[in-house]
Amino acid sequence: MQIEYTDPDEVFKELLKAQQVKPQVLTVNISDAFNFVLAEDVASPIDVPAFNSSHLDGFAVRSMDTEGASLQNPIILNIKGSIDLGELPPVTIQKGDSYQVRTGSYLPEGCDAVVGKEDVKVEGDKVYVTKPVKPGSEVVRKGSDVAKGMVVLRAGHKIKAQDLGMLRLLRLDKVKVYAKPVVAVASIGSELTESIEEAEKGKTLNTHAYTLTALIKSAGGEPLYLGIVPDDTAAIKDIIVEGLSKSSLMLTIGGSSIGEADLVSKTLQTFAPTMHKHGLKLHPGRVAGCCVVKGKAIIILPGLIQSTINAFVYLALPLIRHLSGLDTSRCEATVRAKLAEDLVFHRFPDFKKMTWVSLKKAEEGLLAYPIRGDSPMLNVLVRADGYILTEPNKMIVEKGTAVDVALVPGLSSLPK
Amino acid sequence: MQIEYTDPDEVFKELLKAQQVKPQVLTVNISDAFNFVLAEDVASPIDVPAFNSSHLDGFAVRSMDTEGASLQNPIILNIKGSIDLGELPPVTIQKGDSYQVRTGSYLPEGCDAVVGKEDVKVEGDKVYVTKPVKPGSEVVRKGSDVAKGMVVLRAGHKIKAQDLGMLRLLRLDKVKVYAKPVVAVASIGSELTESIEEAEKGKTLNTHAYTLTALIKSAGGEPLYLGIVPDDTAAIKDIIVEGLSKSSLMLTIGGSSIGEADLVSKTLQTFAPTMHKHGLKLHPGRVAGCCVVKGKAIIILPGLIQSTINAFVYLALPLIRHLSGLDTSRCEATVRAKLAEDLVFHRFPDFKKMTWVSLKKAEEGLLAYPIRGDSPMLNVLVRADGYILTEPNKMIVEKGTAVDVALVPGLSSLPK
Repeated sequence: MQIEYTDPDEVFKELLKAQQVKPQVLTVNISDAFNFVLAEDVASPIDVPAFNSSHLDGFAVRSMDTEGASLQNPIILNIKGSIDLGELPPVTIQKGDSYQVRTGSYLPEGCDAVVGKEDVKVEGDKVYVTKPVKPGSEVVRKGSDVAKGMVVLRAGHKIKAQDLGMLRLLRLDKVKVYAKPVVAVASIGSELTESIEEAEKGKTLNTHAYTLTALIKSAGGEPLYLGIVPDDTAAIKDIIVEGLSKSSLMLTIGGSSIGEADLVSKTLQTFAPTMHKHGLKLHPGRVAGCCVVKGKAIIILPGLIQSTINAFVYLALPLIRHLSGLDTSRCEATVRAKLAEDLVFHRFPDFKKMTWVSLKKAEEGLLAYPIRGDSPMLNVLVRADGYILTEPNKMIVEKGTAVDVALVPGLSSLPK
Repeated sequence: MQIEYTDPDEVFKELLKAQQVKPQVLTVNISDAFNFVLAEDVASPIDVPAFNSSHLDGFAVRSMDTEGASLQNPIILNIKGSIDLGELPPVTIQKGDSYQVRTGSYLPEGCDAVVGKEDVKVEGDKVYVTKPVKPGSEVVRKGSDVAKGMVVLRAGHKIKAQDLGMLRLLRLDKVKVYAKPVVAVASIGSELTESIEEAEKGKTLNTHAYTLTALIKSAGGEPLYLGIVPDDTAAIKDIIVEGLSKSSLMLTIGGSSIGEADLVSKTLQTFAPTMHKHGLKLHPGRVAGCCVVKGKAIIILPGLIQSTINAFVYLALPLIRHLSGLDTSRCEATVRAKLAEDLVFHRFPDFKKMTWVSLKKAEEGLLAYPIRGDSPMLNVLVRADGYILTEPNKMIVEKGTAVDVALVPGLSSLPK
């Protein structure tokens, strides 16, 4: 069977269009919302702070009452009471009056300044102010942190630590987020084993599923590992049926090359897929493919680890992100770096090339070192911090070129 | 009580020296090891691949046997058999012989090249090779991914997705990692509530603990939230006793300013701490402190959110990292950016300043925008991507200056 190679971006576009699974909305407690993606814009129902409040321990005053105050001629105000934290303030403040306040105490209307306790003298129920204060001095204005009605967080935003505090500050109990899509994974190949004893006798230890389940988690999915399946059409059929019934998206690993064991693509054909592509103009990763069966995507990842991961990054990562409410980018972020060595390609001229690089800090910024090593070599990925993409027909990228290094969640890291 | 302000780096150094908790070593299954920190160097017990192996589906040959082959004069080799995936190879290959192989099949000794099946013709048990192949052609050399004895991952490394595959590839079942330290958190303040109803009547909703527990998780710790404690010496004593008994490190939030409620520091004094500092030359964050009681660190975080987080980043983050086997840096990584606006400080000349910034991409690289807003404002942090530190006595950092933006796990993100 001859593979026909297609532009990988085209393939992903078709896949995204053909698959019918939609992000699911879920209501969760704020305390469980960390790292979920918001499914709604969050507008503030309140002003924060709810009232003008004090920035200091001291006395709340009307600034106009302190005009002309000096050490020689202090202005004497009545202490009408104190306003503790969490206490609703008196409605207004009268001319000549003051209230003792703490940092964060709410202020009555008309009160537009706070004098720090270090700057006054107190005698009984009188406070001596020895210098004038400006309107607004040491006052945190009502709504100055968050104004009522303001959209603070938007749908599609991944909830960070500080957002949890914010959601709570807005007096929310629960929030709508996108559910984490279940992503089924099956390892295909009669040579595979989960047993170290069998590996010592020559079988190949399943390693890829360990990496993939961690990548799925990091991408925002919920991995469901279905185990190893031999190179056998009936067994592959069964696992596909199982995977489709239990997940939003299924990944198969291996069984995708043009050898006798190229069974996955053939077997999938029997499911009458509404979309089916085998072969990407992506190197490494060209023997990857994908199809859609009953509205669900199945992504065929090649067995050689760099190809496995490249195809995951190209087809599965953006789909998992889509299903968890994010955009369909193939990274978490990119960083700009300078290529530290020439990057030369010898094969597949009209293919996109994905090159894993390690990053180092230099005086002028980040340097990206392409990691050499064939597609089966896992150590290339162990040393990798991110990847760069090179457009088709560009066979040399010169040392010193500025490149965008894409960071893959769970795999990438940045140098200190 | 007058606070004495000390250089925050000095304070952390003393704290780290005085506290006696050590990172704990734990043995976990590889499938559970994601994001743990390795507690041992991992050297490979085996060569990967274990034998020379094939990079293609095709025929394993001795390159010298193919010398002079051409379309006109193909060289005819005997097919002695086939070597399937996961099968131990024959010990050697004889002159004039070949074996049918698949991508990843192990090769017998003496076989130093593979001819792709596209490049041969097969008739019965004979294969016709129509061009010479070079030694090493399409052969993945034994040990070329990982050589036996090579240290692949080092102690102190945080385990990434691809490392899981690598650990398994080295035929490891379990690995030694550092346990996640339990970090107790107590919110202190009679004004606090967990109830939205009470907040509507004026009380302050607990928000900080939501953010802190997520930051603790992201830093590698296991948060243990102990709840709200009123401004009451006996209650504070009780919670400290509880926290110390259940955790490796305790954080208190609030009750640290110089007001009447400055009870935490005073109460801690009654525990006869072996080290005790209150006041950091860090702005915002100056009213933070820490002490060591019975060998365990207690970090006093101020109540105004930016000060809370700054003190967390300065004192707690590096200690959590230390207790989970990492270095004591105050970030996950830094990125270089250009300051987009002048940064001007008016107060605390001899303090370090911590400024939260948002990052934007520009043609020339990243731009860092300082986020303005007082210490109580949470929205500053919601908009933040990272922070920059400014050294004491530097009161202006000019627009265009290259700055290192520190990324805090759980809080930071990078622009796409």
